Amino acid sequence: MSSQIVALLTDFGSRDPFVAVMKGVMLGINPDLRFIDISHEIAPQRIREAAVVLSVSFPYFPPQTIFLVVVDPGVGGGRRPIVVETAEYIFVAPDNGVLGSVLSRAGVRHVIHATEPAYFRQSISRTFHGRDVFAPLAAWLSCGVTASDVGAPIEDYVRLELSRPRQLSENLLEGEVIYRDRFGNLITNISESYIAGLWGSSDWGRIRAQVETSVIDGLDSYYAQRAPDTPGLIINSWGLCEIFVNGGNAAQETGAVEGSPVKIQRLQASPRAVSEHD
Amino acid sequence: MSSQIVALLTDFGSRDPFVAVMKGVMLGINPDLRFIDISHEIAPQRIREAAVVLSVSFPYFPPQTIFLVVVDPGVGGGRRPIVVETAEYIFVAPDNGVLGSVLSRAGVRHVIHATEPAYFRQSISRTFHGRDVFAPLAAWLSCGVTASDVGAPIEDYVRLELSRPRQLSENLLEGEVIYRDRFGNLITNISESYIAGLWGSSDWGRIRAQVETSVIDGLDSYYAQRAPDTPGLIINSWGLCEIFVNGGNAAQETGAVEGSPVKIQRLQASPRAVSEHD
Amino acid sequence: MSSQIVALLTDFGSRDPFVAVMKGVMLGINPDLRFIDISHEIAPQRIREAAVVLSVSFPYFPPQTIFLVVVDPGVGGGRRPIVVETAEYIFVAPDNGVLGSVLSRAGVRHVIHATEPAYFRQSISRTFHGRDVFAPLAAWLSCGVTASDVGAPIEDYVRLELSRPRQLSENLLEGEVIYRDRFGNLITNISESYIAGLWGSSDWGRIRAQVETSVIDGLDSYYAQRAPDTPGLIINSWGLCEIFVNGGNAAQETGAVEGSPVKIQRLQASPRAVSEHD
Repeated sequence: MSSQIVALLTDFGSRDPFVAVMKGVMLGINPDLRFIDISHEIAPQRIREAAVVLSVSFPYFPPQTIFLVVVDPGVGGGRRPIVVETAEYIFVAPDNGVLGSVLSRAGVRHVIHATEPAYFRQSISRTFHGRDVFAPLAAWLSCGVTASDVGAPIEDYVRLELSRPRQLSENLLEGEVIYRDRFGNLITNISESYIAGLWGSSDWGRIRAQVETSVIDGLDSYYAQRAPDTPGLIINSWGLCEIFVNGGNAAQETGAVEGSPVKIQRLQASPRAVSEHD
Repeated sequence: MSSQIVALLTDFGSRDPFVAVMKGVMLGINPDLRFIDISHEIAPQRIREAAVVLSVSFPYFPPQTIFLVVVDPGVGGGRRPIVVETAEYIFVAPDNGVLGSVLSRAGVRHVIHATEPAYFRQSISRTFHGRDVFAPLAAWLSCGVTASDVGAPIEDYVRLELSRPRQLSENLLEGEVIYRDRFGNLITNISESYIAGLWGSSDWGRIRAQVETSVIDGLDSYYAQRAPDTPGLIINSWGLCEIFVNGGNAAQETGAVEGSPVKIQRLQASPRAVSEHD
Repeated sequence: MSSQIVALLTDFGSRDPFVAVMKGVMLGINPDLRFIDISHEIAPQRIREAAVVLSVSFPYFPPQTIFLVVVDPGVGGGRRPIVVETAEYIFVAPDNGVLGSVLSRAGVRHVIHATEPAYFRQSISRTFHGRDVFAPLAAWLSCGVTASDVGAPIEDYVRLELSRPRQLSENLLEGEVIYRDRFGNLITNISESYIAGLWGSSDWGRIRAQVETSVIDGLDSYYAQRAPDTPGLIINSWGLCEIFVNGGNAAQETGAVEGSPVKIQRLQASPRAVSEHD
């Protein structure tokens, strides 16, 4: 049997030793654990950013992966540590919405408020529950301890509503930028399947996108199809509309940030659709 | 048996391939090794910063962990490679003080000057002893080679005195900032146990802290207890006094850096203590 | 038998979850894989930088290592995914020159254009072939699938000529800066063996180097041999001439960047050589 995998997502950065200390604590409980770092560069205490990053990464991990998510501005206060179990995965995190994208999907078996001190470090600091609460919990869960061993189910966990696109008129949609990646690509919350539900799944005709003052005509099949240094629109690897600049940085070029509105307009229906109605 | 763990701490950064090359060399000697990165973002050649980071992280690793610490401004010159063995751990590093926090604790079994060329790479470069000396040493030590196999004990290894707080008057202590973390928290060298040794272990009465021109009244139990964007004082996860800004960045707000003096004052003894003396 | 190693080199950065998603996909195919990160901080889409970093790191990995190299500005377009097999290693990458330093060496067994969809993810996105093509390929190759299982050999793969030094006159060579490391060291393409081929292998006499307006006299044996804050010249751990500043940052001090010309001059032959001719 392969040894168990813990995937980590935090805002701890890579300079400070916080992540390594969590790993050391976990290896003290389960010496066979293996770790995959999703990211530790979530902007400090940005719960929403972590929720977005988690939502697009966890489905690619093999079943039984344990996700340890620590973005925890409320550390030491009243917020609860929770364990979420789905058909495939286990998630350990503070109850502050950071698991929002997991909890809003089907397949959540239960949400447990972890209270059993046997699965925490003996002495719990005021400032680093990643080390004292969440890492030990994840390690014990990897050893066969079950979610129900660590506490009782709750229903009133914190929900985090991720923004959704809306239809402004028959041929006009509005969503927003939810993430800027390293390349400056602007990832929106407008999914291919959302558009297909409104405009059909194949040919959407002439498409125009707008973000800030930049207007983009046409949908690209790949980045290099667009002229160099020109903004383009593509369905990205997450099935979401993404604004890019071929060979450049769309975030810098357009000035858009997380939350910037993005409009997608259908200038005319597809030729085939038009001919059907003529 | 679980495979052996090497924990790495360097100033090599994450862009250059130096760390990966060390790992490749170690896997060539012991293919089963597993690696935990403590940090590679120590400021270039800042021995003292590495010593602080090591001191607060190594105790959380399981016994038998081998620590490979390479911050090595004197590479290629006369400084010696050393192996330090304690009851629980093995440390491999240049003899330049970077292991200062380990060497000043009880429990050091011996400090070995590594000289046996069989445990180095065959050809040793002038600029990268991480690859040619320290990584191979760590890998061979993970294979059952003992510290005494690689050289002879020395006593004249380089000491690094970490700064200590002092008592200025009965109710006034002075220490300094020893580390700024990613969140801008200012970690001082004033420990809870040091204060308890002077003022008793339970109630210290009204406390005031000062760093640069910022004055903080009261000791917090958790970050969010302090009003937003306001500096607070807390005993952190390392048992040290830490100045933070709830939801903000204390280093930026106060202008303090490593070495900035921090004063802790007892404005009045605790009510109980006062009543006893009245 | 130890589990197989995949070494990753990309321009994906460490903030976005791209690298973790590739690892998740690979673990879904081969749960025993272990990963070593060479670097993910290659400047976005800088193929040449990745080729240099790969060339100086791959030879230090143990045989059977699989290298997964994804710097892929042409993702989604016509560029081909390739698998390169040498006597010791397997490389998986886009056919855009990023494997240039591998392909120009002896020992390449074959270059395969990977076309067999059974070894890709079922649905291939337009923007993330790291996840959908290259990671699954690497994972399947780690499971015993052979390079010839995934496609047919090609000869017309993209070559990348790395710059070479040249001799301007008997005692004068010119090369260029090919890499600036974290410490600001300027690594050139002028190797010790190239110089030895021209001027003999032992004593080169008085050497002068010039980069931008900085002139350096003499060749150092180790960094600290040069006066502090002064530029020096050394044969580095890759056997290449490197310009450094002892305790400082040569890139900042000299203003040199990748591509800056570097001259190496022999001011006079070695004393021994001179006496032989006198």
